[in-house]
Amino acid sequence: MYDGYSSWVEVEHYLKESKFPTAILPIGSVEAHGPHLPLLTDSIIADAIAREVGKKVNAFVLPVFHYGTLWSLKDFPGSTWIKSDTLGKVIYEVGSVLATHGFKLFVTINAHVGNNDAIKEGLRALIKDFPSLNILMFNPDLIFETGRKYIESKPWYKMYYHADEIETSLLLFLAPESVRMDQATKDYPEIPLNFDYKFIPWKKLTKRGVIGDPTLASREKGKKIFEEIVKKIVDVIDKEITYLIESSAKTA
Amino acid sequence: MYDGYSSWVEVEHYLKESKFPTAILPIGSVEAHGPHLPLLTDSIIADAIAREVGKKVNAFVLPVFHYGTLWSLKDFPGSTWIKSDTLGKVIYEVGSVLATHGFKLFVTINAHVGNNDAIKEGLRALIKDFPSLNILMFNPDLIFETGRKYIESKPWYKMYYHADEIETSLLLFLAPESVRMDQATKDYPEIPLNFDYKFIPWKKLTKRGVIGDPTLASREKGKKIFEEIVKKIVDVIDKEITYLIESSAKTA
Amino acid sequence: MYDGYSSWVEVEHYLKESKFPTAILPIGSVEAHGPHLPLLTDSIIADAIAREVGKKVNAFVLPVFHYGTLWSLKDFPGSTWIKSDTLGKVIYEVGSVLATHGFKLFVTINAHVGNNDAIKEGLRALIKDFPSLNILMFNPDLIFETGRKYIESKPWYKMYYHADEIETSLLLFLAPESVRMDQATKDYPEIPLNFDYKFIPWKKLTKRGVIGDPTLASREKGKKIFEEIVKKIVDVIDKEITYLIESSAKTA
Amino acid sequence: MYDGYSSWVEVEHYLKESKFPTAILPIGSVEAHGPHLPLLTDSIIADAIAREVGKKVNAFVLPVFHYGTLWSLKDFPGSTWIKSDTLGKVIYEVGSVLATHGFKLFVTINAHVGNNDAIKEGLRALIKDFPSLNILMFNPDLIFETGRKYIESKPWYKMYYHADEIETSLLLFLAPESVRMDQATKDYPEIPLNFDYKFIPWKKLTKRGVIGDPTLASREKGKKIFEEIVKKIVDVIDKEITYLIESSAKTA
Amino acid sequence: MYDGYSSWVEVEHYLKESKFPTAILPIGSVEAHGPHLPLLTDSIIADAIAREVGKKVNAFVLPVFHYGTLWSLKDFPGSTWIKSDTLGKVIYEVGSVLATHGFKLFVTINAHVGNNDAIKEGLRALIKDFPSLNILMFNPDLIFETGRKYIESKPWYKMYYHADEIETSLLLFLAPESVRMDQATKDYPEIPLNFDYKFIPWKKLTKRGVIGDPTLASREKGKKIFEEIVKKIVDVIDKEITYLIESSAKTA
Amino acid sequence: MYDGYSSWVEVEHYLKESKFPTAILPIGSVEAHGPHLPLLTDSIIADAIAREVGKKVNAFVLPVFHYGTLWSLKDFPGSTWIKSDTLGKVIYEVGSVLATHGFKLFVTINAHVGNNDAIKEGLRALIKDFPSLNILMFNPDLIFETGRKYIESKPWYKMYYHADEIETSLLLFLAPESVRMDQATKDYPEIPLNFDYKFIPWKKLTKRGVIGDPTLASREKGKKIFEEIVKKIVDVIDKEITYLIESSAKTA
Repeated sequence: MYDGYSSWVEVEHYLKESKFPTAILPIGSVEAHGPHLPLLTDSIIADAIAREVGKKVNAFVLPVFHYGTLWSLKDFPGSTWIKSDTLGKVIYEVGSVLATHGFKLFVTINAHVGNNDAIKEGLRALIKDFPSLNILMFNPDLIFETGRKYIESKPWYKMYYHADEIETSLLLFLAPESVRMDQATKDYPEIPLNFDYKFIPWKKLTKRGVIGDPTLASREKGKKIFEEIVKKIVDVIDKEITYLIESSAKTA
Repeated sequence: MYDGYSSWVEVEHYLKESKFPTAILPIGSVEAHGPHLPLLTDSIIADAIAREVGKKVNAFVLPVFHYGTLWSLKDFPGSTWIKSDTLGKVIYEVGSVLATHGFKLFVTINAHVGNNDAIKEGLRALIKDFPSLNILMFNPDLIFETGRKYIESKPWYKMYYHADEIETSLLLFLAPESVRMDQATKDYPEIPLNFDYKFIPWKKLTKRGVIGDPTLASREKGKKIFEEIVKKIVDVIDKEITYLIESSAKTA
Repeated sequence: MYDGYSSWVEVEHYLKESKFPTAILPIGSVEAHGPHLPLLTDSIIADAIAREVGKKVNAFVLPVFHYGTLWSLKDFPGSTWIKSDTLGKVIYEVGSVLATHGFKLFVTINAHVGNNDAIKEGLRALIKDFPSLNILMFNPDLIFETGRKYIESKPWYKMYYHADEIETSLLLFLAPESVRMDQATKDYPEIPLNFDYKFIPWKKLTKRGVIGDPTLASREKGKKIFEEIVKKIVDVIDKEITYLIESSAKTA
Repeated sequence: MYDGYSSWVEVEHYLKESKFPTAILPIGSVEAHGPHLPLLTDSIIADAIAREVGKKVNAFVLPVFHYGTLWSLKDFPGSTWIKSDTLGKVIYEVGSVLATHGFKLFVTINAHVGNNDAIKEGLRALIKDFPSLNILMFNPDLIFETGRKYIESKPWYKMYYHADEIETSLLLFLAPESVRMDQATKDYPEIPLNFDYKFIPWKKLTKRGVIGDPTLASREKGKKIFEEIVKKIVDVIDKEITYLIESSAKTA
Repeated sequence: MYDGYSSWVEVEHYLKESKFPTAILPIGSVEAHGPHLPLLTDSIIADAIAREVGKKVNAFVLPVFHYGTLWSLKDFPGSTWIKSDTLGKVIYEVGSVLATHGFKLFVTINAHVGNNDAIKEGLRALIKDFPSLNILMFNPDLIFETGRKYIESKPWYKMYYHADEIETSLLLFLAPESVRMDQATKDYPEIPLNFDYKFIPWKKLTKRGVIGDPTLASREKGKKIFEEIVKKIVDVIDKEITYLIESSAKTA
Repeated sequence: MYDGYSSWVEVEHYLKESKFPTAILPIGSVEAHGPHLPLLTDSIIADAIAREVGKKVNAFVLPVFHYGTLWSLKDFPGSTWIKSDTLGKVIYEVGSVLATHGFKLFVTINAHVGNNDAIKEGLRALIKDFPSLNILMFNPDLIFETGRKYIESKPWYKMYYHADEIETSLLLFLAPESVRMDQATKDYPEIPLNFDYKFIPWKKLTKRGVIGDPTLASREKGKKIFEEIVKKIVDVIDKEITYLIESSAKTA
């Protein structure tokens, strides 16, 4: 694996030697995650997944992009964010540099739902201007779909989770020193009128910035969730690279 | 000190208790720094300074913003960057969130020269829209002015340094495991015709991405440089806060 | 109901007389919908829903905005679209005009999935700049959730539908002369490798621009789906207005 | 003629079979037109002209773009608009999609004076980026030049008309059910000081949103005006296509 | 009169002493004007008018803005221009500075037709954000309407003039050393097919960059045209200021 | 030399005949320069240098761009400016027109420090999009470095000068009628706390808009400074053109 601690000479070496040079960009957020989890919860998760995946597929793992775009939890102190449009530009500009340097596959690993749209916009613009760059995009639905298999608590209303059993378990595994389990409490707020059709800042919804039940979290659950996510992403990347190499062999 | 590992409740507490709530944003880059230093050299330096300063002035230290804007070394593989305009927007947007949440002083600590203009643009826009937010901006000239007192090698042409004795000493102190001293060599390239008036990508200037002599670097020098920089910034912040509190007491 | 055929004098009258002046903006697309449905399928659906809702809640129904943003089906001839960013601006600008003229509730009724993100961006910007304007946003998931209750065919892979039994039934009810049932055929393409994580133009997926089985569509089904959607939206708007009027009475 | 009620398969057929594939975009406005005419007056006119022309030259007539840019009448309730810059982007983006799909001639038919500049900007940007796309632009001066031949009333100050005998006659022919002749009155306001050199919102000029004398309007006049406009545009398009085909035959 | 040769102290004095502080911005172009006139023809005319008007109404005359936006003559060497959007921003930004400094009337004097739209956009944005700033806009139609009274030659097709008898006469009066009458020839090109509805770069229309007959120009004609234009503008400004002072006296 | 008083035919001739067609753009500002110097001080200096250089290297000297971007002195009446971003666009757009017309070398001569960043941004964008256009950029550090050799007074704090002995001497040489030496006084204000790290509008620093000692200025000093600057720039341009011609001969 290559990363921000590599020198440019090592990255140049990787670009020459790899059969399918791959760059992975983890994207997180600086966002309130209840009284028991750090602001960097999403960044920690995205970064850890990206690095573990990067080791297994031998990729260049970029430094985590901490500053996501927030709306729901933007009013909690410490939540610090950039606009959706600015995030989309960052994704586009980072991707275009990578394409110019010779990377063939650009993988985004995002752990914050609010970033999804901006990343999609940035990646679609990349596809238009750099058609030979291949792209894989992983968003937090993968985290929650996987997490649901291992947790005991229920989501709030349809499928909402925040600073819940899944994220808390992941942090207990990835950064246990930053979790204050004594401050974890569950929060299943009343569902506001017409919730599906309105924009409601979560300050009006939850006093603590929690949706779900983090008290049931455990390091073991976190480990299992993390490992399954990594396995899934590695599998997708491996199959995609095999497919792309075979396709290009055919057309050549 | 509060940082990305704090919870939002802790940041809220800080905002209520501090007499002059202060946020510090370290800004680095992902840039080629010779074969002996990591791509993240500037980020590591900015982050370490910000955190040490943050401890001493009891501030909220934001996660380091890794992605600076590059030009001179943009063509070296691994150099990964965003546009100057995008960086300016990030600075503006992060600062405006902080102002909204109640911070009174916003301090930027930047370790990459290429970021200076964008940060200035972003901060000036902030001043216009949030006139009650106070701002202090530290740029890498402080690093180089301080470093010059402790090093033995000379700068290249007027005042150019890159991956040189100063930066290498700082990394030997801050992240020694990421320095490969066996690959450090000095580089004092010939000065190109009309260098002051042209735009010359450094790929044409230096094969290794080094300007200066990193071989003379030492952990001791790095420690002294680092501590003097931190001392200077702490001193500026302390005096500024005292001055601002006294001024507002007068006008009140 | 007031609409584009009203005069400005009538709209002025409505603004003065209504206890909670409401504007409804239908948003569609000009997009390939198989060989059997018109390009304007989404516009026809959004417009019909908006008008029927407008009659029941006595609102100002704006002319349908035909030009959505496309990606998946952008390569089919006739698919004609604007950028996501431009659509977001349209939503913001239209909404800000309405707020300035005195409307208190702005309702978007969108029938094209690809528009969701842009509308959300536009509406969130509105909320920031016009905090007294209330907003309700209806997206096509309401159409598909409702439609699923009445149809016999299955969605393709997870929850994809396009020019399928639901949309075809709606068109058979709303604009039967524009449906060519003799050209309707079902299309359940093979699921591409890593489909969830990639950007695949649908030209590579479906030759006809159909996902699902439109052959089972009927006018009856369309009528039931349409009426339930309208009932749901009317119910949401009615409850929201009652709630907002009561809330403001309390704070007054 | 092909239009929004066509399927993409039909548009594809047209693109293959037509010797000079032509797309026509009607552009209107949602604007106060006195107490006797609908907000959609300009859209109705532009759409009707475009469709009639489209039938005669066998073109793809796009759905009318309702949302023009307003200034003079922006303060009348119901006037709903987008910025000039946004309209220019819409024109550019729609035109670039058409060029990509293989259209060779892009015709804009605009019935609202305030749109002229934005359309010109959008089309000039298209010409630069898609030099092989041919363009014809029809603006409302054609409507008023033609209308003047058939009406009895005089324009207000130099050449101003709004919701006047020309537009009212056209609506009596095209959408008689939307005209309330009993509410039509003439309005020839006093000419404000320095009118030619100032920006005066028409709310200060005319109480009713009328400039001219709509009381003299008739369906017969509307029919004649409409038919002459259509004839003129058809003639221009026919000659242009003939000229372009002959020119390209020469260079081939 | 105050101008760019004044010191800021003098401008400050003017702002304090004037009963209605007025700033005049002349706007020209750098554009081909035949072989006999300088590229700066429009700038020379706008600047001379602005300065003469400024003397008579005692205003602050800003330095001429040379760089207009071009389209028709953009392909002639030496034609040097900025985008319409950029020009609009310049107008807005200059006007907003003036409003902030306390000017009450902002007058634009533009001598290049291609600038009209951009200036209008910029001024309308100013009106929105600085409603207390009054605006008067003079465009080249005033030059041509006035010029027509004194010249012998006819316009080309409807009302086109360029480097013609009017502009050449004005330059013979204002900057005779820059006119090469021996190279002046008339040019009345054939009218291209569908000229009113197309975008035709003038390189295809006129070899010399002339439309009209400059050979009939004279210094005498130029003097008369110039003096009448100045008189007209002075009259408009005087009446406007009187009107604005009286209006504000009434409301006070 | 060719300039704005040339006709397009002359510029075309120059482009054909010159072995290395060169365009020079002088850039100034409209900025307070004390009570003794005109607002246009920087424009006068930039223009005079550009024209003298243009004569010696036989270039096309563009009309001076008067409107720079200001921050420090923006609050003094008469200081009139555009945004940094807008100035950058102007530089880019002017340069791209010149590249399109066939110029091979684009030289900017800027006399206002505040413009440096914007010019750099604009030129770097040009380099990316027009890689065959060569660029030389001269900024006011050249003026101050040269001036320091001839003056008697000291700079204020490190290296600040404004409306000082250097600029006043240059104006005494270039535009003596616009200098009011009787109003020149020296100003060496107290250095504000933390001056290097803050944004301080100069209205808080200097009452008169002067930094340094203009009373020691003389026409003789101005002449020497001016001539040395011109000589330096001519030398740089001559050597650059020789180098570029030789380089291209080698690669050909």
